[in-house]
Amino acid sequence: AATHSKSYSITLLPGDGIGPEVISVAKSVLNLAGSLEGIEFRFKEMPMGGAALDSVGVPLPEETLAAARQSDAVLLGAIGGYKWDKNEKHLKPETGLLLLRQGLRVFANLRPATVLPQLADSSTLKREVAEGVDLMVVRELTGGIYFGKPRGFGTNEKGEEIAFNTEVYASYEVDRIARVAFETARKRHGKLCSVDKANVLEASMFWRKRVLAMASEYPDVELSHMYVDNAAMQLVRNPKQFDTIVTNNIFGDILSDEASMITGSIGMLPSASLGKSGPGLFEPIHGSAPDIAGQDKANPLATVLSAAMLLKYGLGEERAAKRIENAVMDALNRGFRTGDIHSAGNKLVGCKEMGEEVLKSADSQA
Amino acid sequence: AATHSKSYSITLLPGDGIGPEVISVAKSVLNLAGSLEGIEFRFKEMPMGGAALDSVGVPLPEETLAAARQSDAVLLGAIGGYKWDKNEKHLKPETGLLLLRQGLRVFANLRPATVLPQLADSSTLKREVAEGVDLMVVRELTGGIYFGKPRGFGTNEKGEEIAFNTEVYASYEVDRIARVAFETARKRHGKLCSVDKANVLEASMFWRKRVLAMASEYPDVELSHMYVDNAAMQLVRNPKQFDTIVTNNIFGDILSDEASMITGSIGMLPSASLGKSGPGLFEPIHGSAPDIAGQDKANPLATVLSAAMLLKYGLGEERAAKRIENAVMDALNRGFRTGDIHSAGNKLVGCKEMGEEVLKSADSQA
Ligand SMILES: CC(C)[C@H](C(=O)O)[C@@H](O)C(=O)O
Ligand SMILES: CC(C)[C@H](C(=O)O)[C@@H](O)C(=O)O
Repeated sequence: AATHSKSYSITLLPGDGIGPEVISVAKSVLNLAGSLEGIEFRFKEMPMGGAALDSVGVPLPEETLAAARQSDAVLLGAIGGYKWDKNEKHLKPETGLLLLRQGLRVFANLRPATVLPQLADSSTLKREVAEGVDLMVVRELTGGIYFGKPRGFGTNEKGEEIAFNTEVYASYEVDRIARVAFETARKRHGKLCSVDKANVLEASMFWRKRVLAMASEYPDVELSHMYVDNAAMQLVRNPKQFDTIVTNNIFGDILSDEASMITGSIGMLPSASLGKSGPGLFEPIHGSAPDIAGQDKANPLATVLSAAMLLKYGLGEERAAKRIENAVMDALNRGFRTGDIHSAGNKLVGCKEMGEEVLKSADSQA
Repeated sequence: AATHSKSYSITLLPGDGIGPEVISVAKSVLNLAGSLEGIEFRFKEMPMGGAALDSVGVPLPEETLAAARQSDAVLLGAIGGYKWDKNEKHLKPETGLLLLRQGLRVFANLRPATVLPQLADSSTLKREVAEGVDLMVVRELTGGIYFGKPRGFGTNEKGEEIAFNTEVYASYEVDRIARVAFETARKRHGKLCSVDKANVLEASMFWRKRVLAMASEYPDVELSHMYVDNAAMQLVRNPKQFDTIVTNNIFGDILSDEASMITGSIGMLPSASLGKSGPGLFEPIHGSAPDIAGQDKANPLATVLSAAMLLKYGLGEERAAKRIENAVMDALNRGFRTGDIHSAGNKLVGCKEMGEEVLKSADSQA
């Protein structure tokens, strides 16, 4: 038996819908990649989202947050489902996710959108537009209108009912996400596009000013600014023009999902949420897909690739991360596809079998 | 000479960049369509946007707003340009547009996104995904985060600089846009999708609740709700699933631009902004394109089709509107294309010539 030079604690949050299935695959892949690299993982599975609402009555139990905080990294499956859609705000699965992000202070959400050559045909965009897309959205995750106060319901001077939220950013919040974005762009292709609505919103004018002020520290990064409506268009018109995009919480929510769909394979896309220190949160960008839950149909690769991001960005274990990425590519090259990315001439497999093929690929590269 | 049974006053706001060129074409087309239908137009051209900043020092002169208010309808070209991009907020061309919308109280912005069979190949989406797209975004235009207070700059309790905006909706604001949307859906294909972020924002929960409350008055309209991030994805995945979309000001800004780019021909897309009473505001959805201004390269058809919307929605002159729409289709069918929509086998023309071909088409159908 291999002796483990390193040992990490990982909190697993399977969550709802297809969450448990994809987490189970990712766990096996982590174990194998770890053993090949002399890394031991101590996993702790905790309830979260709808599953926690059903079992404990809250979407993020205190014990779950405490466990997550004490671990070296957190891997989340997916949360939510029709069942809890009508719940009051504090009893929504989504609220659990927001509390988790806030509790872990993971302000920087990295969302790659890459079109793999093997899957370029899955995109609804023409092949020549989609092929070669490789961009990274750096989304601010713990500020802006998601968390801004005041928020709520009330009445105006005329006695009419109103509801309101506040988009607010403080200097340190813009600066820290801008820094992550500049550093990310520097490690990628040196191009950073900051997206805002500075022709209308004060919060965006401030954002633009602070991002611009940091640019002189990164002379090697080519900075541009784009209005959010134009960015939504340019992602459709010519997504290859983008390298790294940085934007606020709500624009990042919208644009990263748009970018992911442009790849045509959202079942493949991972994400990382990082703070200044402490454990990062890693999750596939897809949802809980309640309609196919428990049917062994889910694509586990987004979660497997999230585990790779966990190794790379969360633990600094680049070699183990690369192993997982290579194994995923190898399984795809050997023609295995889950339903969401299947096309003629390939081998249709379920969630578990896809996991086994990735394990085989990882093993054979040992 | 024909005697005119009807006479309308139209305020023309050419604005900046390609604005004057496309307005000039639309004016000729309106004149011809009017004379064929026994309608007289009295045009008044007023400065607005950057042009007004340069000549009068403000982006929306009082006289311009007054003229617009007193007329039967307003046709706008485009505003903005690099030249004024760094201006302070109250001296931005965009601020002029926001003041105009507010001043005319045009709370309902109708933005069709239609893929014409003749132009389906202009889309970056695969032909089978793009062809047949025919949707209408009904965007709330005078509320939400664009106008909400408090807004501005300040410091937080820790003395850090902050900037903030307020997303706020009152019941009457949601109700009146929802009503326009239900009525629009009823006249189209009977499907209405309300887009919000009700899993996170109180303003969206309120929006969803009020839209839902109106549904019982429209049993013939099939209402659905979608989160904005998902809507941004679904527009790329399968835009044909949408008929009418209703959403708030900022989400509408983003999604209508995304939808327009999906058609691949934003040089073709008009818009109408309507209030409860009083003149409507009609404008192409494209910008001022300063890089091609004055070069006779602009596509005037979006403005010509905006003039058709002006006739239909603004003045109730459906026959004259239909004449213009038919003339545009005929000019396209005869193979004329400006650069933005040109493809092999067609005839490349400039802005003026495209206008002349539309006039010929209108005349020959007289
Ligand atoms: C589930 C929801 C609260 C969440 C968000 O809006 O951040 C999701 O859409 C995401 O992007 O991770
Ligand atoms: C120019 C700008 C203020 C405007 C908006 O954001 O409303 C534009 O993008 C539009 O959609 O008409």
